Amino acid sequence: MHKSRLAGFIIDCQGEDIEGGTRFWGAALGLKVKPGAPADPLYRTLDTAPDEVHLEVQQVTHPSRVHLDIETDDIEAEARRLERLGARRIGMVKTWCVMEAPTGQRFCVVRPQRSDFAARANSWPD
Amino acid sequence: MHKSRLAGFIIDCQGEDIEGGTRFWGAALGLKVKPGAPADPLYRTLDTAPDEVHLEVQQVTHPSRVHLDIETDDIEAEARRLERLGARRIGMVKTWCVMEAPTGQRFCVVRPQRSDFAARANSWPD
Repeated sequence: MHKSRLAGFIIDCQGEDIEGGTRFWGAALGLKVKPGAPADPLYRTLDTAPDEVHLEVQQVTHPSRVHLDIETDDIEAEARRLERLGARRIGMVKTWCVMEAPTGQRFCVVRPQRSDFAARANSWPD
Repeated sequence: MHKSRLAGFIIDCQGEDIEGGTRFWGAALGLKVKPGAPADPLYRTLDTAPDEVHLEVQQVTHPSRVHLDIETDDIEAEARRLERLGARRIGMVKTWCVMEAPTGQRFCVVRPQRSDFAARANSWPD
């Protein structure tokens, strides 16, 4: 048995100006940037309410897009579940698994992000 | 004065199989499809909790992607606010305004979608 659910969305911005991209998206959505030094220089977290989805701006080298993250307590089991649904594995990046949906969108399977993960995630038989 | 905030995300699926796309994304995210006849044959709403973002699967003719919607009680004032932040207007579709962020992603400015819009949206001076 493992758990998963929608963690949130990453706003992928092509180019080197992550501060400019973060300023635009923070102002557009009326969200502050989460205070403190970013854990990774290529990411900025927008400070959503605890009951809202996780939102990040990421600096990328591919064309700009938006992708979603699925959070799980067992990345391998969740990747296998998603493969059975028709997704395909692209590869691991650091701790997360990049996948592609049968409908074409790339998305990531990541470790739990939100504080209410255990209480509100879906349970799946392995 | 007008209000706006993040309404949610639309999973744009290229092709004609909206039922297949909806099945995959509903199962992947552990969400049921909102019961009842869809208001528009090109959209299916995933049944997120009232305190979560609005999520839809849309059948599109352009390449698959994910885009976000900003909900507002004044589409013209919100589009002008976003233009001042650097976005550009692509055009109106039915009741919503399609825009492009300075970072390249398309997004839409739509009428209020979520029941707690009035209580939780940001207020902006016009």
